[in-house]
Amino acid sequence: MGNSEGNDALNHQVRLAARPTGTPGPEVWEHTSEPVPVPGPGRLVVRVGHISLDPAMRGWMNAGRSYVPPVEIGAVMRALGFGEVVASEHPDFAVGDTVTGIFGVQSYAESDGSGLQKVTPSADVPPERYLALLGMTGMTAYFGLFDVGALAEGETVVVSGAAGAVGSVVGQLAKIKGCRVVGIAGGPEKCAWLVDELGFDAAIDYRTEDVRKALRTAAPDGIDVYFDNVGGEILDAALTRLRRGARVVICGSISTYNATEPPPGPSNYMSLLVNRARMEGFVVFDYADRYGEAATELAGWLAQGRIRSREDVVDGTVADFPDVLLRLFRGDNTGKLVLRLTR
Amino acid sequence: MGNSEGNDALNHQVRLAARPTGTPGPEVWEHTSEPVPVPGPGRLVVRVGHISLDPAMRGWMNAGRSYVPPVEIGAVMRALGFGEVVASEHPDFAVGDTVTGIFGVQSYAESDGSGLQKVTPSADVPPERYLALLGMTGMTAYFGLFDVGALAEGETVVVSGAAGAVGSVVGQLAKIKGCRVVGIAGGPEKCAWLVDELGFDAAIDYRTEDVRKALRTAAPDGIDVYFDNVGGEILDAALTRLRRGARVVICGSISTYNATEPPPGPSNYMSLLVNRARMEGFVVFDYADRYGEAATELAGWLAQGRIRSREDVVDGTVADFPDVLLRLFRGDNTGKLVLRLTR
Repeated sequence: MGNSEGNDALNHQVRLAARPTGTPGPEVWEHTSEPVPVPGPGRLVVRVGHISLDPAMRGWMNAGRSYVPPVEIGAVMRALGFGEVVASEHPDFAVGDTVTGIFGVQSYAESDGSGLQKVTPSADVPPERYLALLGMTGMTAYFGLFDVGALAEGETVVVSGAAGAVGSVVGQLAKIKGCRVVGIAGGPEKCAWLVDELGFDAAIDYRTEDVRKALRTAAPDGIDVYFDNVGGEILDAALTRLRRGARVVICGSISTYNATEPPPGPSNYMSLLVNRARMEGFVVFDYADRYGEAATELAGWLAQGRIRSREDVVDGTVADFPDVLLRLFRGDNTGKLVLRLTR
Repeated sequence: MGNSEGNDALNHQVRLAARPTGTPGPEVWEHTSEPVPVPGPGRLVVRVGHISLDPAMRGWMNAGRSYVPPVEIGAVMRALGFGEVVASEHPDFAVGDTVTGIFGVQSYAESDGSGLQKVTPSADVPPERYLALLGMTGMTAYFGLFDVGALAEGETVVVSGAAGAVGSVVGQLAKIKGCRVVGIAGGPEKCAWLVDELGFDAAIDYRTEDVRKALRTAAPDGIDVYFDNVGGEILDAALTRLRRGARVVICGSISTYNATEPPPGPSNYMSLLVNRARMEGFVVFDYADRYGEAATELAGWLAQGRIRSREDVVDGTVADFPDVLLRLFRGDNTGKLVLRLTR
């Protein structure tokens, strides 16, 4: 037993103190510290280095039936992360191994090893990339676009939240498949990045443009796959431009996650009938047995320079998590938002 | 040439005079009469006996892109019908043949024969049934439930507009496949008919019950296939009860067809994500090359007494069409609404 962190180290944690109404303010969080855990038999302890910030977190904070149980009141907030094994009584993990997993918003996590992935950062591939293109973000884009979206070569793809973690990967994957790709994002810098750096065919700034009209120009023949990360009015606008047999992939709805009243649904959903189209949701965890396939492809395209991963890394402590999370809902991030722990 | 109807007969017609706002009142129709047409070479004339009334008609009256072109202002209103060939210069049709087709709201229709089906009414199978179970209505239920809905034996099926033409067939088809079937309809008589006569497992009266709560009782394990004919709040309620992998079949949205403002969309559509479910629209005309398959199956089940067809036949003249159409939107009909022309 024992613990390389010494007896003075503390495990700093952010716990959910109350279920939020609307945007989660400081009142929903509780900051605690505990002794660094010591692993029991078959278990290990990870010192968390990077915490992933994901729009889905907002859903995990709500009560009620969903695709995963809600974070309980008083529990450490659920989060994906990257870290280093600092103590191990587990046969498959040694001190010094670097791993990703659901570690929570805390500086140390105890685990039985299930769900952990060993990863090997390098000069070319920094740790945060295993939470982005080479992690759940990349998996979400990959399975959402190729499996749920059933993308075919040469189709027209429109993606919302296009400068976000998942959206920016979706667009690049569609370009690799020879598609026309239109991104919808907020602000001229993000739109320029999509077109100039990532090779999107067009970008629409939803903050200044009428999305419905802009889609007429940017996707003149209509949309084959609409990959939705935002919901709300942008989803509704995209529905008016579906082609026959279109697929609408429901990945998220960030524009509505902090709504205090039930947000309006997509008024134009009858476009699904007119265009014999389908709208389908998915949860990336269902594809766990195929993560290897996606990781191999994504890493290959990354190595070939055919796809880029951008991480928006914020340095801070565990206690900064509540503030950093809000950047997602303001649309402040470009690419994957990650909190790197400076301790 | 010539025409068995004699020189004095007139073709009475109902034409679309203006695009309706909201419920189509008398001001949107124009009543005209013309000489009965005489068929040119390769053409024929049908004396229309029965006119099919379908919720889809309301959509055909609107301007704009849809799955079929809108009825032009001044044109005879589009309608499916049954009739008898009264004059023919077409090699495949003889005077006396009985046929179904898109004849319009008029007493005589001229045709080149394309899209016409020869049918043979009998003592057991009256003409109106070829506009109901053995016509587009039955095809819509069959392909919507089995193909779009991908129904599997033993699943739980919920259908709205359940006492209507399509809904009443959908529920019976699902019972044939060993499913638990819940119908949503308006009024105690319709609900009793679904359970007592058609063998539905449960019926919910949306006029007096809270549909969302009632579904908890009627479909306690959730919904595998929700077949939607009505849209609006009932669709939204059904979305809250989807099972994992559910299919929502979008067949119609009668509750919103006469809306004068864009109706709210289904606020609970994110249930598609949580439950990895899909919502898909379809148009029965796409299945034209498989109508034979469906007709054979449906006729077989009908002959075996495993399925019933109920037609709500209204006797009247072509001029009665505008009033009879409104019965659909009031939910006055049980089963397939048909106008039988008394001339």
